[in-house]
Amino acid sequence: MKVPIVENVLKLNDEIAAINRQTLRDADVFTIDLIGAPGCGKTSLLEVTLEELGGGPKRFGVLVGDLTTDRDAARMAERCDQVVQINTGKGCHLDANQVRQGLGNLDLDRIDVLFIENVGNLICPVGFDLGQDTKVGMFSISEGDDKAAKHPHLVHVAELLLLNKTDLLPHVDFDTDRFREDVRRLNPDVPLVELSVRNRSLQPWYAWLETAAGRIAIG
Amino acid sequence: MKVPIVENVLKLNDEIAAINRQTLRDADVFTIDLIGAPGCGKTSLLEVTLEELGGGPKRFGVLVGDLTTDRDAARMAERCDQVVQINTGKGCHLDANQVRQGLGNLDLDRIDVLFIENVGNLICPVGFDLGQDTKVGMFSISEGDDKAAKHPHLVHVAELLLLNKTDLLPHVDFDTDRFREDVRRLNPDVPLVELSVRNRSLQPWYAWLETAAGRIAIG
Repeated sequence: MKVPIVENVLKLNDEIAAINRQTLRDADVFTIDLIGAPGCGKTSLLEVTLEELGGGPKRFGVLVGDLTTDRDAARMAERCDQVVQINTGKGCHLDANQVRQGLGNLDLDRIDVLFIENVGNLICPVGFDLGQDTKVGMFSISEGDDKAAKHPHLVHVAELLLLNKTDLLPHVDFDTDRFREDVRRLNPDVPLVELSVRNRSLQPWYAWLETAAGRIAIG
Repeated sequence: MKVPIVENVLKLNDEIAAINRQTLRDADVFTIDLIGAPGCGKTSLLEVTLEELGGGPKRFGVLVGDLTTDRDAARMAERCDQVVQINTGKGCHLDANQVRQGLGNLDLDRIDVLFIENVGNLICPVGFDLGQDTKVGMFSISEGDDKAAKHPHLVHVAELLLLNKTDLLPHVDFDTDRFREDVRRLNPDVPLVELSVRNRSLQPWYAWLETAAGRIAIG
C-alpha cells in the first residue's frame, strides 16, 4: 500500500516541478539546485559568489532551504536583494511546491541565475525535481574522502561536483586521489572542481557558471 | 490521504522498536543511536573507542548504517568481532526493522554496549525510534557554529551532544560560545562534550559512556 502513495507524491512533485521549469525558462532564469551536507560551505560559496560577481552582467537570486532559522538568508540578503528563505520544519529536502511558493516572492525579471540552496543533506534532496536546470553536488575535505563513494546517487545526477575546503588539506586525513577515483568510477564525465571558499579560489566555479548559464541563454 | 499512511509507517516502526528494546534489555545490552552529519566523525569516534576500551570490562557491538559500501564496517571490524553493516540503498535513516534484522546477526550475549551508527544525516534519523536506550547527537567544528540552531529537533532529543574536531579550531571560523549558547537555549540540560577524535582526547566521552551504560545495568 505504501508504494503507490509514495509514487503519487513524487508524481505530483514532478508535475509542479515541470511548471516551475516552464516559469523559469519563460523568464530566462538559469536555475541551479545546490546539494551538500550540513556545513560543506553552500552558503559561504553563494555569499562570496554574490559578492564577487554581483556587480557583473549576470543578476542573481537565491532560494534557501533550512529546517529553521533565517540565518542563511540574512547572510546572503546583505549581498543580493532577491533572496527568499524557505523553512521546511522537519522536512529533509526542498520540494517543488515549496520552490513554487518561493518563486512567487522573487522578481524573476530581475534574475538571470537563480541558486536554490537545498537543505543540508546528501541524500533526500537528490531524488526531488524542483524545476532546476541542473543539480550541483558539493562535498568538503573535512567530511572525509569516502563521501563520494557513499553517496553515489548524488554523484550520478550532478552536472558539477565541488570539493570545498582544500585549505584544510594540511590539517586532516584526506586522500584526494581516492576521492577523485570514486568520482570517476561513478560518473566519468562530471567535472570536479576543487576549491577553497575561505581562500576565495573560485575561478573554476565561475568559469563553469558562465558556461552553464550561457548554455540556457543560447538554447 | 498521506498523513494516515505516514502515521501507520511510524506506528509500525514504533512497534518493532519496542520489540528491539525488549530484546536488548533482556540481553542486558545498553544501546546508543549515534546521529550526525556525513563526515562529522562518527566512525572515527567508534574506531578509537573500540581500540581504547576494547580490552576493558565492557564488550562492544556495532550496527552501522550507510546508503552503500561496507567501508565503515570494514574499518571497525578490525577492532571488534560484533559488527554488522546495514545498507539502506536510498534510505536516509535506519528504521527499527533494519535494526531488528541487524540484531539477528549479532551475538547479544557477547555485547554489553551496542552502538548504532546511523546514516550520516542530521534530520531524518531523529524521528525514528530504533529501540535504543539513548540518542547521541554529534556535530563537528568544520560544519560551522550554526548547526545546533539549525537542527533543533536533534538537540531536543539527544541525551548527549558531542562537538568533534576541536583540533581544527585554529583553521576555521567557529564561534564556540555561539554554538554553546544555541545548545543551552534549545536544551538547557544536555551535556555537551567538546573533543577531538583525531587527538584522541576522549576521556569525557568515556566518562559519560561509563555512567550511561552503568545506569541501565543498575536500572
